[in-house]
Amino acid sequence: MKRTYTRALAIACAIALYAPILTHAADPLPSWNDGAAKQAIVACVAKVTQEGGAAFVPPEERIAVFDNDGTLWPEQPMYFQIAFALDRVRVLAPQHPEWQEKQPFKAALAGDMRALAETGLHGVLELIMATHAGMTTEAFETIVKDWLATARHPRFNRPYTNLVYRPMLELLEYLRTNGFKTWIVSGGGIEFMRPWTEKIYGIPPEQVVGSSIKTKFEIRDGKPVLVRLPEMDFIDDKAGKPVGIHQFIGRRPIAAFGNSDGDLQMLQWTADGKGTRLLLLVHHTDARREWAYDRQSPFGRLDKALDIARDREWTIVDMQKDWQRVFPFDP
Amino acid sequence: MKRTYTRALAIACAIALYAPILTHAADPLPSWNDGAAKQAIVACVAKVTQEGGAAFVPPEERIAVFDNDGTLWPEQPMYFQIAFALDRVRVLAPQHPEWQEKQPFKAALAGDMRALAETGLHGVLELIMATHAGMTTEAFETIVKDWLATARHPRFNRPYTNLVYRPMLELLEYLRTNGFKTWIVSGGGIEFMRPWTEKIYGIPPEQVVGSSIKTKFEIRDGKPVLVRLPEMDFIDDKAGKPVGIHQFIGRRPIAAFGNSDGDLQMLQWTADGKGTRLLLLVHHTDARREWAYDRQSPFGRLDKALDIARDREWTIVDMQKDWQRVFPFDP
Repeated sequence: MKRTYTRALAIACAIALYAPILTHAADPLPSWNDGAAKQAIVACVAKVTQEGGAAFVPPEERIAVFDNDGTLWPEQPMYFQIAFALDRVRVLAPQHPEWQEKQPFKAALAGDMRALAETGLHGVLELIMATHAGMTTEAFETIVKDWLATARHPRFNRPYTNLVYRPMLELLEYLRTNGFKTWIVSGGGIEFMRPWTEKIYGIPPEQVVGSSIKTKFEIRDGKPVLVRLPEMDFIDDKAGKPVGIHQFIGRRPIAAFGNSDGDLQMLQWTADGKGTRLLLLVHHTDARREWAYDRQSPFGRLDKALDIARDREWTIVDMQKDWQRVFPFDP
Repeated sequence: MKRTYTRALAIACAIALYAPILTHAADPLPSWNDGAAKQAIVACVAKVTQEGGAAFVPPEERIAVFDNDGTLWPEQPMYFQIAFALDRVRVLAPQHPEWQEKQPFKAALAGDMRALAETGLHGVLELIMATHAGMTTEAFETIVKDWLATARHPRFNRPYTNLVYRPMLELLEYLRTNGFKTWIVSGGGIEFMRPWTEKIYGIPPEQVVGSSIKTKFEIRDGKPVLVRLPEMDFIDDKAGKPVGIHQFIGRRPIAAFGNSDGDLQMLQWTADGKGTRLLLLVHHTDARREWAYDRQSPFGRLDKALDIARDREWTIVDMQKDWQRVFPFDP
């Protein structure tokens, strides 16, 4: 009996000991076609994890940062958070009869994207404040979850959280298996992302950096609450991304993944550290399976960053060529 | 040979498997005297870690937040960061001849704490901005590290980072061993803490929440830098603490540790969640080994929070009675 137990324990331990090796033997990135992008990823991970190697990075410094819109999930025909805001305007409109004649709400209610665009940044911020503020943080979380449970993407007719890029899910998991801590650093609202990133991406709320509005602590009827105020606190985009990374993480990442000019400074900040670096841009080149856009797109414009990436030989993913599948539901 | 290897493996695995149990068998909190405080800590950890138990909390939700000044290290005769700022004023004074006649610098240079106090919050902020801003984040980190390497506490004549509370170090480790993620949530400057918290407390920079000034991303001579600006960004004290917790962690803690009225809202916010909670205040009652102060202290005043803690039966540590040792160098 004792010997059997010992043997079973030994086998169990052997499995535990060799499981990482077995995992490595299978391709950890099956949705990536063989090519320069996949090779660059695998080569970087091999270098920084090789104990005793010149490029070894201890696990606590293996920080990888990911943009969200256009990098982990799509941003067409508009940022998904804008679709959320437009839906919220429709839900709240009966309580705001004045919106029928007042921009940007009139345009939002009419679905007139051109008129909405004409209201500019000021209009969009007004829309965000009217739909994202004025409730407690708990109430907002419920609103986001309820919307995600029912809203459908207009092209794919699926929940938005189904539309995550399968190659990037594999990449997130591959990095974590190799001791990386994976972070989102997005221009999107931090509280719009946190309710679902752990389930969908395996990224816990404390590893999500994003734009935020101010909140205020209050005691309401004896109960402490945080109330969301109609005032921007931080815009985590462009030059804001290195600021957000420094504020939240306090270490310089060794790998950064983006897809637009909004990610340029994050990649520059990451690139400037000492030692091996992985800088990667997703280039949307696949109109059939997803979308094809870059220098002219109102959402996720990729122009200056594309030139700099080519000049510095950062890794550029050609979605059409490099990704065998795009979405989890692709065959 | 094979059998020997199998046996060695089995033994090694058995050690690995039972190490947590062995750790439990030894007292994980040897610097805590037996008493209500220690019992409350151990009871809470036992409840939330008991798989299948009614109070079980999954590891990802085991968030514990710690104030720093007065909770993990002392705050007398003044916050250590103020000692740092005063030393910086002395170092920088030759470049600022105007400081000899200008408050709050004149008082700082003369070591006149009464005159400094009279300059109020405005004076203290001016002192902070003059000493904490105007350089890159990397340069500031070096300044902090250099100061900590040479500065000595006036009473104990030791480096400030030697003056951490040994019972709290044990508590941090005990919680982490039991799957908790330990965070600092301090009114102190986030970038004043991050250079040393990992080494001293085992708390990595990304788990430090604190007060901050604004930073700005720039390209200087082709090199991306973050420059520290003389403008407050966030004050992580009192009602700011739940805001900071929500902003950085995005989950409600299940355990909160503080020592002053500045921690009251953090404890209230933590207490209001569902399920088992551990709320603890360190009461400084030991003038011989440390300091004795509460309702009248200019640093770390404990007044309103003490009343509320007693009323709600939160755990109050009587430093003199509950702590067998205070500092790591105590016999």
